[in-house]
Amino acid sequence: IRLALQSWPDVDRYLQSCKGVIIPLGSTEQHGPTGAIGTDALTAEAVALELGRRSGVLVTPVQAFGMAEHHLGFAGTMSLQPATLLAVLHDMVLSLATHGFERIFVVNGHGGNMATTRAAFAQAYGTAASRGLEVAPRLRCKLSNWFMAGPVMRRARELYGDREGQHATPSEIAVTLHLHNSLIAKQRALPEAAPCGSIHGPADFRRRYPDGRMGSDPYLAKPEHGLELLNTAAEALREDLSTFLTAA
Amino acid sequence: IRLALQSWPDVDRYLQSCKGVIIPLGSTEQHGPTGAIGTDALTAEAVALELGRRSGVLVTPVQAFGMAEHHLGFAGTMSLQPATLLAVLHDMVLSLATHGFERIFVVNGHGGNMATTRAAFAQAYGTAASRGLEVAPRLRCKLSNWFMAGPVMRRARELYGDREGQHATPSEIAVTLHLHNSLIAKQRALPEAAPCGSIHGPADFRRRYPDGRMGSDPYLAKPEHGLELLNTAAEALREDLSTFLTAA
Amino acid sequence: IRLALQSWPDVDRYLQSCKGVIIPLGSTEQHGPTGAIGTDALTAEAVALELGRRSGVLVTPVQAFGMAEHHLGFAGTMSLQPATLLAVLHDMVLSLATHGFERIFVVNGHGGNMATTRAAFAQAYGTAASRGLEVAPRLRCKLSNWFMAGPVMRRARELYGDREGQHATPSEIAVTLHLHNSLIAKQRALPEAAPCGSIHGPADFRRRYPDGRMGSDPYLAKPEHGLELLNTAAEALREDLSTFLTAA
Amino acid sequence: IRLALQSWPDVDRYLQSCKGVIIPLGSTEQHGPTGAIGTDALTAEAVALELGRRSGVLVTPVQAFGMAEHHLGFAGTMSLQPATLLAVLHDMVLSLATHGFERIFVVNGHGGNMATTRAAFAQAYGTAASRGLEVAPRLRCKLSNWFMAGPVMRRARELYGDREGQHATPSEIAVTLHLHNSLIAKQRALPEAAPCGSIHGPADFRRRYPDGRMGSDPYLAKPEHGLELLNTAAEALREDLSTFLTAA
Amino acid sequence: IRLALQSWPDVDRYLQSCKGVIIPLGSTEQHGPTGAIGTDALTAEAVALELGRRSGVLVTPVQAFGMAEHHLGFAGTMSLQPATLLAVLHDMVLSLATHGFERIFVVNGHGGNMATTRAAFAQAYGTAASRGLEVAPRLRCKLSNWFMAGPVMRRARELYGDREGQHATPSEIAVTLHLHNSLIAKQRALPEAAPCGSIHGPADFRRRYPDGRMGSDPYLAKPEHGLELLNTAAEALREDLSTFLTAA
Amino acid sequence: IRLALQSWPDVDRYLQSCKGVIIPLGSTEQHGPTGAIGTDALTAEAVALELGRRSGVLVTPVQAFGMAEHHLGFAGTMSLQPATLLAVLHDMVLSLATHGFERIFVVNGHGGNMATTRAAFAQAYGTAASRGLEVAPRLRCKLSNWFMAGPVMRRARELYGDREGQHATPSEIAVTLHLHNSLIAKQRALPEAAPCGSIHGPADFRRRYPDGRMGSDPYLAKPEHGLELLNTAAEALREDLSTFLTAA
Ligand code: NI
Ligand code: NI
Ligand code: NI
Ligand code: NI
Ligand code: NI
Ligand code: NI
Repeated sequence: IRLALQSWPDVDRYLQSCKGVIIPLGSTEQHGPTGAIGTDALTAEAVALELGRRSGVLVTPVQAFGMAEHHLGFAGTMSLQPATLLAVLHDMVLSLATHGFERIFVVNGHGGNMATTRAAFAQAYGTAASRGLEVAPRLRCKLSNWFMAGPVMRRARELYGDREGQHATPSEIAVTLHLHNSLIAKQRALPEAAPCGSIHGPADFRRRYPDGRMGSDPYLAKPEHGLELLNTAAEALREDLSTFLTAA
Repeated sequence: IRLALQSWPDVDRYLQSCKGVIIPLGSTEQHGPTGAIGTDALTAEAVALELGRRSGVLVTPVQAFGMAEHHLGFAGTMSLQPATLLAVLHDMVLSLATHGFERIFVVNGHGGNMATTRAAFAQAYGTAASRGLEVAPRLRCKLSNWFMAGPVMRRARELYGDREGQHATPSEIAVTLHLHNSLIAKQRALPEAAPCGSIHGPADFRRRYPDGRMGSDPYLAKPEHGLELLNTAAEALREDLSTFLTAA
Repeated sequence: IRLALQSWPDVDRYLQSCKGVIIPLGSTEQHGPTGAIGTDALTAEAVALELGRRSGVLVTPVQAFGMAEHHLGFAGTMSLQPATLLAVLHDMVLSLATHGFERIFVVNGHGGNMATTRAAFAQAYGTAASRGLEVAPRLRCKLSNWFMAGPVMRRARELYGDREGQHATPSEIAVTLHLHNSLIAKQRALPEAAPCGSIHGPADFRRRYPDGRMGSDPYLAKPEHGLELLNTAAEALREDLSTFLTAA
Repeated sequence: IRLALQSWPDVDRYLQSCKGVIIPLGSTEQHGPTGAIGTDALTAEAVALELGRRSGVLVTPVQAFGMAEHHLGFAGTMSLQPATLLAVLHDMVLSLATHGFERIFVVNGHGGNMATTRAAFAQAYGTAASRGLEVAPRLRCKLSNWFMAGPVMRRARELYGDREGQHATPSEIAVTLHLHNSLIAKQRALPEAAPCGSIHGPADFRRRYPDGRMGSDPYLAKPEHGLELLNTAAEALREDLSTFLTAA
Repeated sequence: IRLALQSWPDVDRYLQSCKGVIIPLGSTEQHGPTGAIGTDALTAEAVALELGRRSGVLVTPVQAFGMAEHHLGFAGTMSLQPATLLAVLHDMVLSLATHGFERIFVVNGHGGNMATTRAAFAQAYGTAASRGLEVAPRLRCKLSNWFMAGPVMRRARELYGDREGQHATPSEIAVTLHLHNSLIAKQRALPEAAPCGSIHGPADFRRRYPDGRMGSDPYLAKPEHGLELLNTAAEALREDLSTFLTAA
Repeated sequence: IRLALQSWPDVDRYLQSCKGVIIPLGSTEQHGPTGAIGTDALTAEAVALELGRRSGVLVTPVQAFGMAEHHLGFAGTMSLQPATLLAVLHDMVLSLATHGFERIFVVNGHGGNMATTRAAFAQAYGTAASRGLEVAPRLRCKLSNWFMAGPVMRRARELYGDREGQHATPSEIAVTLHLHNSLIAKQRALPEAAPCGSIHGPADFRRRYPDGRMGSDPYLAKPEHGLELLNTAAEALREDLSTFLTAA
């Protein structure tokens, strides 16, 4: 399931029966006073691996660094500029397309990556065509944000109501608590978060959201929620993936 | 209202009372067998100008070329690669920020521009910060797609039901018929369009949507619809713009 | 004549008899205390359209933003960096070449675009060749600056003598007065302009040319001159275009 | 120790006593008929984490995709072009420098990354200086290749003699066997590998090294070697790191 | 006079009395069946050095590779793409500006470099300003093409009439004969050259100008002409340089 | 031997019997209080030409500007950013590959170029493959640093012991004294140099190595050493080159 644990002849064999592949995409950025900086990469990878297990589709290593320019006002955030992330995803897609992969499914854990990822897909289609790659007419990429899958959002709403918020949300924190018990000790009651709002540059973000949270109460997160949300996400994405892989 | 018709001292005066500006962003791409290649730029510009008239906010010239890689299989389409459009919007925002503009409202007429535009905003915030521009902490950009405004989508649904489709839609065509009477003569009944679906590379697009339409029946479009939709869009965006300009 | 008002099958048909196309290229930059910021785009577009009417050659939308770094010291100027404009023109030419256009005629309204446009042509020829485009060996681009056409310069000299100057010239302002009556009200007598000289960075430009004019007296401009100059330019460029299109 | 498991206030506190940070850098590329595609990322991450445990220095997530253009002839390889990887490392260093990190220690698992990483450091120093970052004069980056540490090379020589080879070496494979027991089952005797030689483009590489190995016999690798080599590497790098962090 | 032969304290001293510097810019490209591939770099460097000797202004090493995409159809041509040459000149100007040089005079030997050089100047001014370099407001660059200096063109006309042509001209060849006696042996009568015309891509160039010459008869060149033209060029440029350095 | 002094038909003929070419690569950067700024370019060019003479392999003009960001704190240094130098070398290799050159041997005079040059080779191999160049599968590039050739380092050790140092070394200075007698007059006794150490950004470099030298005593250099070292280098590289050209 993990591309990292396959040999190249394994991949050659795999390609004879499946042209699909899953790329987990995360970010390394602040997640509030108690949340883990690696949240988006940890969750994207976990969802992608669970999805891989259920579907039998290969999962590449996680790209743990994403577009997090607006979080650069908080220590520990590591951001790729949009133009850089665009190039990264472009090169990843082109590498895979060179081998004959035709359906590339990105499991994303960070809202800030969405725009750049879609831009990168368009850039990659163009390059595949201009290089005359054999798969160019059949190459398809799809962005799937696990935290926006319908069942995930419904369950998060049930669990946390409007304290879910938009960044450092209890649902994503819950998944990290499930994955890394050591994070449970960081949990503590926090003052009311700044209300949700828009996102612009790093100084503006820090002014609006002084502790990094956007309307969320991550103290509500429990590891058992995390397990449930992980499974919910994997199941929801499994349907999306299946449709994506089998579509004419 | 039109930046193009102002002198620089006019702009200096304007900046004393308003830091907002509107950028119309279009595309130059096929719009089905009867639709105008300039549809997205014509409509974005018309909506932006009407919005400018109603709000008193300056409107820059339209950027008529956008990200239309997937339409390159049809003659006449002119596309900027995502990395190019990203640079264009980055430079436009930085130019405006240098003069002291702080709220930049992009009126977009083309779905394919959305991802790249948002990526460009993030790139621009980063540059503004790293250059130490005086307005950097206050700089805000907003993408507003006129065809996705709630009242516009509702009215389009009333007028065209599910024949609105997703590309070369009767609503956007109607606006062009209102703007350019000469286009009315191109209108003719067309066979059922290919159903809506996903968008990938240019060859895939042409295979899925052989005449360029995605589920739409542009023959339903009437110039008088266009006028109404234009006004509806301008009014809907006026509220968005007002909120954007006055937000703390 | 306007590509924007054609459908893609119209363009397919057009290409059966003509491989030529006209791109108007402008700039959005200060034009002195009374001149319009959109002057270069407005005039380039007007000349291109008149040229299209006379020649029957398709005219793309205007690229209204050009290389105007040196004008960034004046409010309202929006400049693409040279590397950005190079990419824009490259992508425009490549898009057109993909469809089979072989002769691309750029009608330019701004001196500051000249160098970058020529650089972009060379970059585009290289890409067309390295991509193996079918038209690559036949692809030709030509830069034509309407304000430097012989008959235009002669007529400007007759009308304005050495008060024509080099930026915010009465001849270009006259064309805008003809196109937009509202601009006539901005006209007023101005003090002697700073003398013509060289152009370097934005701070140097503002120091040398404090009100933005280079040796010009735009108050001499009359709308009727504008009409005449527009026709003169279109006629002069028609010969250039004809030669360009028919050359072996 | 893992940046991914810290919160931003944790990082703020950390920076009060230490300005150093460790970045593991890998690659996702073929490692012969039996080796794991993820070898270089798995080993770099493992060494970096062990180094972090021993030194108390924070370890960022692994950048799992590196410069592997020459391996693109083998299925599953995912490569960033040198210009892309340069931008990635540049952005990572700049992000860290913005927060006040001054000593950036890259633990690298792939020879193909070395040149680009060093180029990226120079690019990052330049940007830090031209942006006027507060830490610019103190910013230092260091590339440390775990597989080239003296004690590691000596032990590999003892264990494998000249069957260590240069790619898909038993020493790196041993570390992966230790980390992932599932890989042990892939181990099998292989024919004599192609002899070591130079590295150029992907077609040349596949021609010279038909099964992907360069002079190595990965069948010699044992999980217990892996544990030992991992500890040896961590200990060797700990000295390098300590010197790096304390140097005036 | 040669920067290459100065030490850094020499340059520090020089900058106390002069802020000017000369950059010779050439190209490495075919010059017809008998002309030297290095012609443009050899001549630019020779003119620049003679100019340096007469003026006392420092001369940097020659940038021997320029923009010669259109000559790539002939063996031996080495071309930088326009975007690459733009970056090279940008970095050279910024390096010099960092040290306090304010007047940068490029002696160019190749028509194909002109556009890109001017674009690079604009890019460099922009970067100097956005980096806040101390010299930014005073930084000036000037392109001077030795072969287009009035006295040079007049003398070439006297010597060669309309057999001067536009590429592989007897005047530039004469300078190389003067500089390298070994080239005299290559001189031989050639058939009538293809007439002058326009320049587009490499295939088009080779088709139009099958032996690489544009309307020229390099057999007319004599070493003694070369010496004379070299002196003429140096003297002509000395006046330009003097004006450039002393202008307010 | 010098490509600059060949005509294009000469190169066509040459390619029938040899696919190899030598590129000298230097730098323009401070070399201590008495050393020439052009040292690295002068020496690389001299070694390359001597190597060409001995081997009969063509030598291109020297690329005199390299990656010298860390020397920018000393007047006169002109540096290309790594991304720029990468593009330069990429374009040079691609130009040569287009003509059918298959073995490209870079004679380098500057340690700071090494990483970027290797990165550029990888980028060039990728482009050659993606463009489908005829020579792509056979294209090979090799970096050869004359100052690191075994016999050169041994002789330098004999001559200068540990006063050779690492920058502004007596061995490289000796070669320049041999090449340019005028430099002999600059030689003078200098205080003990700062000890060798690591290299980071420009401010750090100047702080560590206040006069620009790294552990060297260039006053030991003699012109006759230079001649000897030049011959030693040429002979050592001749073997490397021969192996490179004849390798299967
Ligand atoms: Ni998150
Ligand atoms: Ni549309
Ligand atoms: Ni103008
Ligand atoms: Ni490895
Ligand atoms: Ni020439
Ligand atoms: Ni040196």
